[in-house]
Amino acid sequence: MENDLLSLDEIIRRVDAKAADYCALSDRIWTMPELAFEEHRSVAEHIAMLEHEGFRITRNVGGMATAFVAEYGEGSPTIGILGEYDALPGLAQVSGAIEHKPSIEGGPGHGCGHNLLGSGSALAAVALKDALVAGGIKGKVRYYGCPAEEAGGGKAYMARAGAFNDLDAAFCWHPAVLNEVLTESSNAAIGARFCFTGRAAHAAVDPHLGRSALDAVELMNVGVNYMREHMPSNARVHYAITNAGGEAPNVVQAYAESTYSVRSPDLTDAEHVFARVKKIAEGAALMTETSVNVQIIGGCSNVLPNQALQDVMYENMRRIGPPAFDGADYEFAQELRNKALTNDDVLASVAAKDISLRDKILHDGLLPLGGGQVDMGSTDVGDVSWIVPTSQCFTACFAIGTPFHTWQLVTQGNLPAAHKGMILAAKAMATTAADCLRNPEIILRAKAELRKHTGGRPYRCPIPPEVTPGDLRAKAT
Amino acid sequence: MENDLLSLDEIIRRVDAKAADYCALSDRIWTMPELAFEEHRSVAEHIAMLEHEGFRITRNVGGMATAFVAEYGEGSPTIGILGEYDALPGLAQVSGAIEHKPSIEGGPGHGCGHNLLGSGSALAAVALKDALVAGGIKGKVRYYGCPAEEAGGGKAYMARAGAFNDLDAAFCWHPAVLNEVLTESSNAAIGARFCFTGRAAHAAVDPHLGRSALDAVELMNVGVNYMREHMPSNARVHYAITNAGGEAPNVVQAYAESTYSVRSPDLTDAEHVFARVKKIAEGAALMTETSVNVQIIGGCSNVLPNQALQDVMYENMRRIGPPAFDGADYEFAQELRNKALTNDDVLASVAAKDISLRDKILHDGLLPLGGGQVDMGSTDVGDVSWIVPTSQCFTACFAIGTPFHTWQLVTQGNLPAAHKGMILAAKAMATTAADCLRNPEIILRAKAELRKHTGGRPYRCPIPPEVTPGDLRAKAT
Amino acid sequence: MENDLLSLDEIIRRVDAKAADYCALSDRIWTMPELAFEEHRSVAEHIAMLEHEGFRITRNVGGMATAFVAEYGEGSPTIGILGEYDALPGLAQVSGAIEHKPSIEGGPGHGCGHNLLGSGSALAAVALKDALVAGGIKGKVRYYGCPAEEAGGGKAYMARAGAFNDLDAAFCWHPAVLNEVLTESSNAAIGARFCFTGRAAHAAVDPHLGRSALDAVELMNVGVNYMREHMPSNARVHYAITNAGGEAPNVVQAYAESTYSVRSPDLTDAEHVFARVKKIAEGAALMTETSVNVQIIGGCSNVLPNQALQDVMYENMRRIGPPAFDGADYEFAQELRNKALTNDDVLASVAAKDISLRDKILHDGLLPLGGGQVDMGSTDVGDVSWIVPTSQCFTACFAIGTPFHTWQLVTQGNLPAAHKGMILAAKAMATTAADCLRNPEIILRAKAELRKHTGGRPYRCPIPPEVTPGDLRAKAT
Amino acid sequence: MENDLLSLDEIIRRVDAKAADYCALSDRIWTMPELAFEEHRSVAEHIAMLEHEGFRITRNVGGMATAFVAEYGEGSPTIGILGEYDALPGLAQVSGAIEHKPSIEGGPGHGCGHNLLGSGSALAAVALKDALVAGGIKGKVRYYGCPAEEAGGGKAYMARAGAFNDLDAAFCWHPAVLNEVLTESSNAAIGARFCFTGRAAHAAVDPHLGRSALDAVELMNVGVNYMREHMPSNARVHYAITNAGGEAPNVVQAYAESTYSVRSPDLTDAEHVFARVKKIAEGAALMTETSVNVQIIGGCSNVLPNQALQDVMYENMRRIGPPAFDGADYEFAQELRNKALTNDDVLASVAAKDISLRDKILHDGLLPLGGGQVDMGSTDVGDVSWIVPTSQCFTACFAIGTPFHTWQLVTQGNLPAAHKGMILAAKAMATTAADCLRNPEIILRAKAELRKHTGGRPYRCPIPPEVTPGDLRAKAT
Repeated sequence: MENDLLSLDEIIRRVDAKAADYCALSDRIWTMPELAFEEHRSVAEHIAMLEHEGFRITRNVGGMATAFVAEYGEGSPTIGILGEYDALPGLAQVSGAIEHKPSIEGGPGHGCGHNLLGSGSALAAVALKDALVAGGIKGKVRYYGCPAEEAGGGKAYMARAGAFNDLDAAFCWHPAVLNEVLTESSNAAIGARFCFTGRAAHAAVDPHLGRSALDAVELMNVGVNYMREHMPSNARVHYAITNAGGEAPNVVQAYAESTYSVRSPDLTDAEHVFARVKKIAEGAALMTETSVNVQIIGGCSNVLPNQALQDVMYENMRRIGPPAFDGADYEFAQELRNKALTNDDVLASVAAKDISLRDKILHDGLLPLGGGQVDMGSTDVGDVSWIVPTSQCFTACFAIGTPFHTWQLVTQGNLPAAHKGMILAAKAMATTAADCLRNPEIILRAKAELRKHTGGRPYRCPIPPEVTPGDLRAKAT
Repeated sequence: MENDLLSLDEIIRRVDAKAADYCALSDRIWTMPELAFEEHRSVAEHIAMLEHEGFRITRNVGGMATAFVAEYGEGSPTIGILGEYDALPGLAQVSGAIEHKPSIEGGPGHGCGHNLLGSGSALAAVALKDALVAGGIKGKVRYYGCPAEEAGGGKAYMARAGAFNDLDAAFCWHPAVLNEVLTESSNAAIGARFCFTGRAAHAAVDPHLGRSALDAVELMNVGVNYMREHMPSNARVHYAITNAGGEAPNVVQAYAESTYSVRSPDLTDAEHVFARVKKIAEGAALMTETSVNVQIIGGCSNVLPNQALQDVMYENMRRIGPPAFDGADYEFAQELRNKALTNDDVLASVAAKDISLRDKILHDGLLPLGGGQVDMGSTDVGDVSWIVPTSQCFTACFAIGTPFHTWQLVTQGNLPAAHKGMILAAKAMATTAADCLRNPEIILRAKAELRKHTGGRPYRCPIPPEVTPGDLRAKAT
Repeated sequence: MENDLLSLDEIIRRVDAKAADYCALSDRIWTMPELAFEEHRSVAEHIAMLEHEGFRITRNVGGMATAFVAEYGEGSPTIGILGEYDALPGLAQVSGAIEHKPSIEGGPGHGCGHNLLGSGSALAAVALKDALVAGGIKGKVRYYGCPAEEAGGGKAYMARAGAFNDLDAAFCWHPAVLNEVLTESSNAAIGARFCFTGRAAHAAVDPHLGRSALDAVELMNVGVNYMREHMPSNARVHYAITNAGGEAPNVVQAYAESTYSVRSPDLTDAEHVFARVKKIAEGAALMTETSVNVQIIGGCSNVLPNQALQDVMYENMRRIGPPAFDGADYEFAQELRNKALTNDDVLASVAAKDISLRDKILHDGLLPLGGGQVDMGSTDVGDVSWIVPTSQCFTACFAIGTPFHTWQLVTQGNLPAAHKGMILAAKAMATTAADCLRNPEIILRAKAELRKHTGGRPYRCPIPPEVTPGDLRAKAT
Repeated sequence: MENDLLSLDEIIRRVDAKAADYCALSDRIWTMPELAFEEHRSVAEHIAMLEHEGFRITRNVGGMATAFVAEYGEGSPTIGILGEYDALPGLAQVSGAIEHKPSIEGGPGHGCGHNLLGSGSALAAVALKDALVAGGIKGKVRYYGCPAEEAGGGKAYMARAGAFNDLDAAFCWHPAVLNEVLTESSNAAIGARFCFTGRAAHAAVDPHLGRSALDAVELMNVGVNYMREHMPSNARVHYAITNAGGEAPNVVQAYAESTYSVRSPDLTDAEHVFARVKKIAEGAALMTETSVNVQIIGGCSNVLPNQALQDVMYENMRRIGPPAFDGADYEFAQELRNKALTNDDVLASVAAKDISLRDKILHDGLLPLGGGQVDMGSTDVGDVSWIVPTSQCFTACFAIGTPFHTWQLVTQGNLPAAHKGMILAAKAMATTAADCLRNPEIILRAKAELRKHTGGRPYRCPIPPEVTPGDLRAKAT
């Protein structure tokens, strides 16, 4: 009978059956780290495997060369599983080391574990497809190849293009140090570059002829720091000076640039604060007789957590159990902790969840369902969650205490422990998706919850229509 | 013969004849210190004496109730002698003391010696008139009663109204610690208030609802301090926060105000810098979501020194000799210096002129003619000097080391030494004016020099036409 | 029987019996507004009435001439009722007006309704005393005359001196626009003056010789605004420039001063932030070659709300019912709202509680018990609440929308509506105190709750031992 | 007779004889641009040619691998000719182009014409040597190979090591757009890096845990901009942010760095201002709870112009005449001006000297001797000029309007016009040096003038003893 083939045990069995192939995919991606919007080889690897499994491929989704959708099946419901595969600059590192040892000096590396993320999601999609095939079950499963999570958010462009509009539920995960179903919301975010142009002059001979773009950058920052008192306490505004106008003190800086990130639990609030930041930039330009050009470089919506889906996912993870770490896994994790992680690292990674976990090396349990606070970070999964009920989990792939975006994470990215965490995530997503297929009530409840949450407000992409991913790619070069 | 009556000795004799009356006038003015634009009683005292001498009085010159012109004689040339009589806030002090002892707590006082200035100039005008009368000499002598030197410059309004247009030469002086003919230029200046309006809120409970006008004042100051690198080195911009928006930290300041002074050796340059300061104010308003209102509160032109007149005045002062200070004068000055003046005070008062004078208590000599540098300060005599050849002198009325705008100066303002300095100034102005009357060549040379200096540019008042002295009076209340 | 005399009805009757006398006291205090630490006549008026009622008076409590305790009765328990009577500068206003009309230009006024506060508390204490007398009941009632709530907190000094140590329960109230029992905590706060000394110079002639204390004040503010990003979101830091160094832009400011308030829900956190603010002040002094002197001018602890007492007080207020406003009360309130209150005022006064109350003119209901959030403001009742279980209520004395610290509040301070609110407060406090006397269980529960809340940490006064109220009084002069 | 061989015509002849060899050297250096302290191949090329001419080579002068002295002759006097050969980062450019066309993307280039400078000086030294040889004349000629003019000043280290102590006169030149003998002084300068270390944190999640080093850099800049009002008007302070702490707004910047340059016409004044800048840096660290490390990275003394030598050099340049530019030279210069230079560029290059030269394309004249003002720029020739009488000239090598440190200059660096300017400079230096050899009076006058100028103060190196060039090299890597 159909239900049997979608049962927890059946799905687990199908994930296990193909786990080795997708661990191998993850390891290949790990060795070819590609930056945001440039994940051409990584995408080719994913598509090759999914085409081989019979998925129909749509490329160039949302106008991005490295975004694609792979679909299998007919009829409804349609379940989406989201994958990512972009790496980070400057994090190249050899595998399994306990010291910083770049594989290529200055090269990119998978410092956020997206090699696992993309492959684990693909594994879930393929296992689910195999169940549909075996049972002749109606419904579609889609794998979303989402580029550039680290650089402004590929999913927001895909969402803007309507790529998630006909989904009934979506699932995602992230490699982490703990096992948990996410119940937190996140901040909506807007990213922008503020580019000031002034007039150069010799800073010793003719400073009065110069109009300093660096002055403008600094005065904008001063203005923003004054604004902090007068913005909602839960908003966040932070910046980097991404071009300080040159290294020579003796030239008045004719060009300078800062990059801002503005966040708030609500997109509209973030937009209000961002509008004030723009005014401050204009004020700084006025003060310095420079001109300013503002470029939106990204944005994402806050995550709307979906309790209906979370409850099912939690129950499945509870039944699946934690990754089966073995002695070698513990040994390496212990050594890494001794040599390359600080107590502060360990505390930072568990404090907000369960402080007693600081005594563990690898997480062999499951956190209880949380209370739905706001995580102050941001993710482009937020955009998907405004369109379709979405649930996410974290699984333990790395030693407790491993910070994100570090060589310590990269070096663990293709070890057995990471594979085990990835397989758990694939099982958690595939079993929950299977539950949605066999029990339409879950989707109905989840959709009702989403409608209540949005209050009927349709999804609105935080990235203005005139900004295209092409702009960003051009900029990055 | 006519010339005899205008000779140095004759003029000196006539000044001495009426010196006691005008020292008494000065002492009366000293006891009734009145602030800028409010010098009603002081003006009445001056007018009473000049009317008694037969001068024709024109009141309300330039739209100011405390500005007047007193004229005597017929035909040309017309010689102007400029007087002032406004006091300063908070400087009330008893006479002849060697410690700070306010006559009225917090009351005004003649901290710049304008009681002497106005009376000494009147004495010069009257002595000159007496010579004209005695000799039946053609020509007019005018006393200009100029209000509010300390607050934005009454002479600029009088100049704007054309009050100096038909003069052939003008003379002025200032009570000081040294005897000298002024050869320095001064800075043109523009004064303005920047008034910011925001929105109040409880600073602990609802700071995000507030828009701080004090933030705007501070950010404007930050912006101006950044501008300093990029303005001409010889410009000067300085400010006071004249309303910080209240004393309670727990209220977001809804209103705040700063007062700026912008100076440059050239009025046009000062205006350029001022235009940038205004942009910075607008930038600060934009940054803080407040609004700003800019009020010009005063302005004056740079002094155009006139060598033709200076040479004559210097020769006269050399012949007249220094004030005849006596033992009592020295004794008090010495005691004041011991008890109430610092070495820094003494150095500050002589360093730029002749450092060796620090060893003197009272100045019993005459400085040589200087080289025509720019003094960075400003005076509304500058406006007169753009219209008519003008010469000024300083005379020693106070102990060397006495700073301006202090109780130490007030306390000496009606002592015999001060009277002696004032009488010297009256003689220096009256004899030089007499030389202009007897020798038309001097005026021709002086006018040619002025024409050369201005290059034909007509006088332009630094105060915009829409700003009237009435505005300022209203504000001061 | 004893209990009868402490019943709600009996206490209400006794309050009503003496209400007129204490409304008259309140009106007298209203006409003699005295600033913090200077409430000599107000104290004399209170003491006269309480002595007349047989209370024993202790003066100079905590070293303050205007702090006193009035006690009646013997044995335990001991119930404290807290009163205040200080006014605010600049708020003098005639009664019952709908426009700003100072009774004395620039004079003080009861802008926070402390005339009502002190008299209403006294009324409660006297009514309770009358019940003790009538029934021969054991127990003590104390009235605490607490000075200077508006200026650094008299209660913190009284607490430091041990004045509340032997109390069993304490009650307080505040005149307001709504009727409610307070369940919110408040922020601990530290207040300080930062006094910078530099060196004066003529800002146009010798600016390089000056060291600007105003620059130091501004740079400290800039530094603090940069710190905001890096302090806990729930901390509050705000400031006023309380001496900007003079009104003349042409003098480099040799002295300048700012006043800071630092708050946090926890005193230790506030102290941490304050320590950073001090470092910033020192950094600003270093940057400007000025020196800084830091003076703590006040501090108060966060309020520990006590649910045991709140529940009793709420039930009593529910039974007593709202003030019986009549047509004339509504008429004036309506007119004031039309002419002198804005929609924003109205919203601000009800938004955090019950937005639907914006449609009311006077509050004729009772807010439900709240959930115990943190109110970001601060009060020196916090210090009392760390020592003894304390409960507070607000009662409607003023038109909805009336902001605190405004002439609009002063003008209503002696009207019939204000009296009605005050009488309600007296009843709420006296009946709840009576319940504590007849039911020892309440006090036991309240004390256990307090112990749990503090976790055994003893009360620690936020004002350092070396700071005395005398310092502040001296400063204020 | 000996004098004949040192005559202007003889020296000119000898320069012309070897000009082609040294133009070829200059062109080779142009093709191998090496950055400061890394000029190994350039030095090898120079040494090879000078050894071939019989010069004795001393390497590693002042502890720098790329500093050397090449000496020829015996006895006194000893004449030094100074050369430089370091290039600038990022200015790689093909030759003879009228648009920006990097030869190697991002590579270095001779943007200050030091390929010409080093070779032209070597040409002068060799021609002088040839004259000494031919005439058997007593005296020594030295070529100083001075590294790193663009990075903190190699000559200051050489001066500190005593390399110029036994010289009798020194000559230098710089490729430019005009022909002139330099009579201006220059500013003493101190360069330093301010390195701030704080603590990283996620800027959205835990900003209160971060301590921003970028905040410290910005607050230091704010503090310095406030200091500007209170430092001498002729001092100069400017900065670049040389490490802004990363490109990611979402990480609190744990490290950041700025580079400052402090200048004044007098070294002691520069040191005073620099001490204040250091205090400001410490203040910024205190404000932000970061730490700061200050590294002096260079310094140079002000130039003491020597009129005795200038007069001789001017007369020689007048007699030699301007470079003989031909039609092709003008044609290219005209095209470059049309396509790649702005009117502002042209004005900037001639305004301070002779505004009428804006109508010329190449300078075919000689500027009159100037009046000895202070040029606000700085050069390490200043250090030499404190030890030995020194004279410098500029010669026209580039189109009028060519700014320094641009591709427009690089592209002209090996064209015939540049060679012609270089040959003129070699002649100006060699003839003037020859005059010193034949007329000991010149050296006596020059030395007396230098003694008068320094007032007996010995040379003091602006770089502290503990800073070595090795430090800088290490840093640059």
